[in-house]
Amino acid sequence: MTTFLGVAPRVRKSPYYQATLRYGAKAFTVYNHMLMPLYYESPEADYWNLVQGVTLWDVSVERQVQIEGPDAEQLVRLMTPRNLDKFPVGTCKYLPLVDEYGGMVNDPVGLRLAEDKFWLSLADSDVLLWAKGLAVGLKLDLKISEPDVNPLALQGPKAEELVVKVFGEEARDIKFFRFRELDFEGTSMIVARSGWSRQGGFEFYLRDRDYGNALWEALMAAGQSFNLKPGTPNALERVESGLLSYGTDMNLDTNPLEIGLDKFCDLDQSFDFLAKKALLRIREEGVTRKMVGLQVLKGEKAFNEEFWPLRYEGEQVGLLTSAAYSPRLKKNIALAITKTELSEPGTTLWAETPDGVVAVKVVSLPFLQES
Amino acid sequence: MTTFLGVAPRVRKSPYYQATLRYGAKAFTVYNHMLMPLYYESPEADYWNLVQGVTLWDVSVERQVQIEGPDAEQLVRLMTPRNLDKFPVGTCKYLPLVDEYGGMVNDPVGLRLAEDKFWLSLADSDVLLWAKGLAVGLKLDLKISEPDVNPLALQGPKAEELVVKVFGEEARDIKFFRFRELDFEGTSMIVARSGWSRQGGFEFYLRDRDYGNALWEALMAAGQSFNLKPGTPNALERVESGLLSYGTDMNLDTNPLEIGLDKFCDLDQSFDFLAKKALLRIREEGVTRKMVGLQVLKGEKAFNEEFWPLRYEGEQVGLLTSAAYSPRLKKNIALAITKTELSEPGTTLWAETPDGVVAVKVVSLPFLQES
Repeated sequence: MTTFLGVAPRVRKSPYYQATLRYGAKAFTVYNHMLMPLYYESPEADYWNLVQGVTLWDVSVERQVQIEGPDAEQLVRLMTPRNLDKFPVGTCKYLPLVDEYGGMVNDPVGLRLAEDKFWLSLADSDVLLWAKGLAVGLKLDLKISEPDVNPLALQGPKAEELVVKVFGEEARDIKFFRFRELDFEGTSMIVARSGWSRQGGFEFYLRDRDYGNALWEALMAAGQSFNLKPGTPNALERVESGLLSYGTDMNLDTNPLEIGLDKFCDLDQSFDFLAKKALLRIREEGVTRKMVGLQVLKGEKAFNEEFWPLRYEGEQVGLLTSAAYSPRLKKNIALAITKTELSEPGTTLWAETPDGVVAVKVVSLPFLQES
Repeated sequence: MTTFLGVAPRVRKSPYYQATLRYGAKAFTVYNHMLMPLYYESPEADYWNLVQGVTLWDVSVERQVQIEGPDAEQLVRLMTPRNLDKFPVGTCKYLPLVDEYGGMVNDPVGLRLAEDKFWLSLADSDVLLWAKGLAVGLKLDLKISEPDVNPLALQGPKAEELVVKVFGEEARDIKFFRFRELDFEGTSMIVARSGWSRQGGFEFYLRDRDYGNALWEALMAAGQSFNLKPGTPNALERVESGLLSYGTDMNLDTNPLEIGLDKFCDLDQSFDFLAKKALLRIREEGVTRKMVGLQVLKGEKAFNEEFWPLRYEGEQVGLLTSAAYSPRLKKNIALAITKTELSEPGTTLWAETPDGVVAVKVVSLPFLQES
């Protein structure tokens, strides 16, 4: 269904907003109180541009919570079950953030800018308020803010050659989930090898929004020989790759142990993070539901505008959260949360779609592993 | 400019969503991670329906933060500079919420449901995370949650007669900013005399979303003889009435003393709310900028998609936040924040609009006082 979006000052615009309009962004959503382009040609055409070439994404909606001060490491560690005994300056880490009950608050990438300075590059929730609330309540010695940093991402197998063309060989030396300060026309940006796809690429954390249009156009100009296309975080590729979306595949009512994020949870570390007791109890009792992959046994290309209830023998047993057509698998696939006893590959469940009930089969995740 | 909104499960839908589509909602925005209809016929046609008759609004995006437990009153008082020495059960209060620096976190209406139970009916920010962070940090004895309450509003001069027709004379007895539990077809709802307009009306806090469509249709059916129309919080009426919009007219960088909310701030109360020191210092030093009304001296009907910089003698001195055409004043009006020394009625400033620079004149607020 097609809906119009009213544009007003409350919904913030990125420094690349005018460029995304010029380059033909066809639909937007609102994410972290900000406009985010959703696709250009079509989700499927954008998908092929991403997996076969290189695409430029306005991901300014990845707002940064900056945590700075003597207690910065303590606060970051309180918020995540991940073991941060080793988190050197210059590196990034995927950080599930959980509340006191073990519920997912957000799943940012954390960047350590200095011993006492972190950025949390956010999914869609006001972690700024959560972090400030904790810091005020605990009387931590910190300054917490949202600087106007506007990330731009280059994603796709040809991203590295393009970045080297613009920033030189130094960019090639940036390892996965590491970052460096690089110069663009006199402004210093953090450039990380990261991004919300499994196709490889870089994220440019632009600090001075006045350089936004120039950065976009410089990459577009240098990218001509690589057939660079505008793109966005792609719903098809990310489901194929098993990347979770906050608000869709998880929320405050979801804990990291039930959605496959247990590998990022060290419940036996010596540091007492906020959710330690809650997650230890959940581990002891065993999770009652689990994130699974589904193959959707249905003709047309699947996409869900809402959550689809999952049924087994008439009873509701879970929710299908993200359905997508996989162009490479040539199949409809989906992410879902279902009762643990119904999470084994091969299990057949039933999804209630707006067009009727369809059979779905549990399969292993991820659907597609990049070589 | 016309933009398409991509619809996905991450953006939640209200129990009235299908009804708003059936009744012809033409544009939506995203507010508190949820779809919100923006207008039906047109903002101006909806305006006349509101000020001359009665309109039905899906305001489910006013999410409730429920604060319950022995320390509930303490937490609510910590968050607001308003004096809550008297806040009886059954009443509502407009509550500016401010952070430790005095910055606006949100401006909900608070409802006291019991001595130890409050709802905060929110504008657009995750106060749930702020309240939880504070409570965890301060080790308060509380349960804080977002129940799935979905408010529906009837607004306009004919709202009272319509409510009485549906709920009986008991509804007429509800005084301004008070509420009662009323029954609708077997489900109990909180009904308050409140709403985000100056036209008078009621808000129905529906707890069981399965009754959503029935409640909408029952009001629509009973409203036929009153010429009830679907509507939304109206951008024209709220600027005329001087109602502020969080994220537009204020944010974390704004303090309540500079935007005319000082009448809700009791800095001399005995209770030590969080921002007391910060606001006392701001009061002592004097605010450096102020919310003002503007008359926009420009031909066509004004509406701003972005903030418009305000200039005086070439220098930027503020921001125009909300411009609207007032159908009753037959003038373009606006809310703005400008330097205190340029806030006197009669002062002429210059607004940078996308169509060029236009003169604006400071005028008294509110633009229009309901009799």
